[in-house]
Amino acid sequence: MSDSSSSRRDLLKGMALAGAGLAFGASSLGAEESGTASGAPDGTPSLAPSMMGVPFEKRETVRIAIVGTGLRGRSVLHELTGVPNVRITALCDTVPEKIEMAVQQMRKAGHDYEPARFSKGPRAYEELVKRDDIDIVYTATPWEFHVPIVLAAMNAGKHAATEVPAAYSIEDCWKLVDTSERTRRHCLMMENCNYGYNELLVLTMAKAGVFGELKHAGAAYNHDLREILFENRDEGLWRRRHHTLRNSNLYPTHGLGPVAFMLGINRGDRFDYIVSMSTPELGLSKWRKDHEPADSPKWKEKYVTGDLSSSLIKTAKGRTIRLEHDVSSPRPYSRINSLQGTNGIFEDYPARIYIEGQGEEHRWTSIDAYKAKYEHPLWRELGEKARSGGHGGMDYVMAYRLVQCLREGLPPDFDVYDAAAWSAPGPLSELSAAKGSAPMKFPDFSRGKWAEERASL
Amino acid sequence: MSDSSSSRRDLLKGMALAGAGLAFGASSLGAEESGTASGAPDGTPSLAPSMMGVPFEKRETVRIAIVGTGLRGRSVLHELTGVPNVRITALCDTVPEKIEMAVQQMRKAGHDYEPARFSKGPRAYEELVKRDDIDIVYTATPWEFHVPIVLAAMNAGKHAATEVPAAYSIEDCWKLVDTSERTRRHCLMMENCNYGYNELLVLTMAKAGVFGELKHAGAAYNHDLREILFENRDEGLWRRRHHTLRNSNLYPTHGLGPVAFMLGINRGDRFDYIVSMSTPELGLSKWRKDHEPADSPKWKEKYVTGDLSSSLIKTAKGRTIRLEHDVSSPRPYSRINSLQGTNGIFEDYPARIYIEGQGEEHRWTSIDAYKAKYEHPLWRELGEKARSGGHGGMDYVMAYRLVQCLREGLPPDFDVYDAAAWSAPGPLSELSAAKGSAPMKFPDFSRGKWAEERASL
Repeated sequence: MSDSSSSRRDLLKGMALAGAGLAFGASSLGAEESGTASGAPDGTPSLAPSMMGVPFEKRETVRIAIVGTGLRGRSVLHELTGVPNVRITALCDTVPEKIEMAVQQMRKAGHDYEPARFSKGPRAYEELVKRDDIDIVYTATPWEFHVPIVLAAMNAGKHAATEVPAAYSIEDCWKLVDTSERTRRHCLMMENCNYGYNELLVLTMAKAGVFGELKHAGAAYNHDLREILFENRDEGLWRRRHHTLRNSNLYPTHGLGPVAFMLGINRGDRFDYIVSMSTPELGLSKWRKDHEPADSPKWKEKYVTGDLSSSLIKTAKGRTIRLEHDVSSPRPYSRINSLQGTNGIFEDYPARIYIEGQGEEHRWTSIDAYKAKYEHPLWRELGEKARSGGHGGMDYVMAYRLVQCLREGLPPDFDVYDAAAWSAPGPLSELSAAKGSAPMKFPDFSRGKWAEERASL
Repeated sequence: MSDSSSSRRDLLKGMALAGAGLAFGASSLGAEESGTASGAPDGTPSLAPSMMGVPFEKRETVRIAIVGTGLRGRSVLHELTGVPNVRITALCDTVPEKIEMAVQQMRKAGHDYEPARFSKGPRAYEELVKRDDIDIVYTATPWEFHVPIVLAAMNAGKHAATEVPAAYSIEDCWKLVDTSERTRRHCLMMENCNYGYNELLVLTMAKAGVFGELKHAGAAYNHDLREILFENRDEGLWRRRHHTLRNSNLYPTHGLGPVAFMLGINRGDRFDYIVSMSTPELGLSKWRKDHEPADSPKWKEKYVTGDLSSSLIKTAKGRTIRLEHDVSSPRPYSRINSLQGTNGIFEDYPARIYIEGQGEEHRWTSIDAYKAKYEHPLWRELGEKARSGGHGGMDYVMAYRLVQCLREGLPPDFDVYDAAAWSAPGPLSELSAAKGSAPMKFPDFSRGKWAEERASL
């Protein structure tokens, strides 16, 4: 409990400091109302060439710094230390004890060297990024720190990887794009679900034409987080606060990233516009009523995020995407993961498929029969090892691929344009819902380069 | 084949005649563009009192006329002749042979009397409605005849029942409402899915509070009709044509009617506005390419209805509804039938439920455990007999309830305000999709009476 309290105090101090300079944490409506709606620099040509398709420099060993060594940071560390040719050169957290937990974990994984430690206040990462032994800074902090840390890393000449969402205002999405282009450093939003077994299986099938011409996909983050959101530790210390700030899809990328790959977003198609609406807020208020004592400080909070945010996205090619977010309701987990084309349809939770001419007419069938032919090569290669890791194995595949791309001098699987496009439904869903579900245009973060056909992964 | 050809010729002749007078079959955009958008008379007080909650007159025997004795009409006839105290007094169809098939069916069901026959052209129903031995006219024709037949019946002092959708323009929805109020006759849109086993089970559970406070529902008509749409008989003769006229949700009521009951639409809540978007049209074009010979007259058709129409509806109480329509894709059947509240969630296809505190945490479970307590009384009473009939039994339950309400002098289960509200997403989804998914307001067909709390069924 004392650990929790000090961690929370430090965090809130950090928020206040950061808020003074960057106004993150504020509703994206603020930006809109002050006349910079949905991306002030939209259409503005960049001063530097695109980062799309730009390969990393080759290197033997990948030197990684991790900012944020809480639950997620240590989980990421676990995966990365299991990949060969990785060196963890620096760790940063406002809570020194969490850094030491991370170092202990490195020891167990056979990484017997001393990483540099940074824990002096919420801006310690500013010192970290100055080092010359870091190839990429991996950010696994609360959401409000993603943008400043990523910007600092790129401005200091480091590639930047961040947990999701990369940003939650359109202005910040543009800052990431502009800074990546100017500094020639990549910004990768580490969407682990893009490496999920089913997601990569369906992606492979889509590329092989099994679904025919694609027309629709479904994506969600429907995950009952009520208990976690109200804990006095870990995510409970900062994540619930976002439910007091914005009525929007707070966390769009876990479902959207994978279907963006399948539909070739920024690889021949792009998100054109979104409409969104939310149910009333009921879930967190009910949880608090049912579980919090009358003198809990949480009774001062006012939750504004509707329980279920439902959006529809239209793409430039006219395809449609259903997008949902619900972390405040009793319900089984689902990211929906659906894909529909002229030949058939896949839906997940549970995984099931129907391809015309295969199996019984108009009946769902198992995806198992497709695995022999369409299992993604990454899973064929890594599956056994991956499955012992986090989130069913996707976390290890993601860590492996990050290191592989950096070592072999490949372009990253996803770039700053993906980070911006997949994060943008956060602020755009808020704007749409606030304006009676009016359609909101996506900025073209790629400045026209989206139309070039490229394969995903 | 000769039967089909003559039937088709007669049908097209009927369309031309009817079109001259009533302009049905035209896109609802026409009405909108000429300045009568989404219901010209919205807000206009009626000249007559509401029909909401108005009981039928009691009677011993229910005398029914059926207009349209094709596949659906004869199926309805089969159910009605299985209900006691029913007399089929008149039959109408443009094809006399179909009337005789209906009469043969009556004989088999023990109805050994002569119904009056009307088959002189597409307006023969105008003679039928003049008879004085009819309590209610049941319309099971192609969609374009629903409104003129229902109006003729009410204007002739008969109650009117129609297959779905009741109408597909907002103007026509208002005509139904105004005429029902003026003539004091009921207009019932016979939405059989409102009587489905699962739908009534979930409705009963919702009324008992099992789901807690309701916040979201899902509804669809996702049914691969491609083969049927291209047949040279039955629905293939007229239904495909609608895919050349409107880019919209052509058939919204099978999914929407049941969830409208669950959410208490027109019984304390109402549809406020809708946003909609469609995928490109690909499915019918592909089917034609794969199946039609090069000299088929169908190659002259241009399909404009996007394969999947996705809509979101916001209610006055702030709840949300997901609504889909897809009859042009290879896919398993689904009406979605989902309902979500603060205590849990139900989804159909396959039926599964999660209620907090019951069963394994965050796992779907079967609905079977709820049947003993929450099976709807109608199914408890009629289930065994119903299941031998059409559509899993819902058709018999519907027929039984229609006769029961008419005999016992009850208000109908659904009235003209339901017919209008449940049909309205057809034209409103077209308007929204055509305007880049802009939100379209529902007219308040009930003129304010929606706010009165009433139980559904």
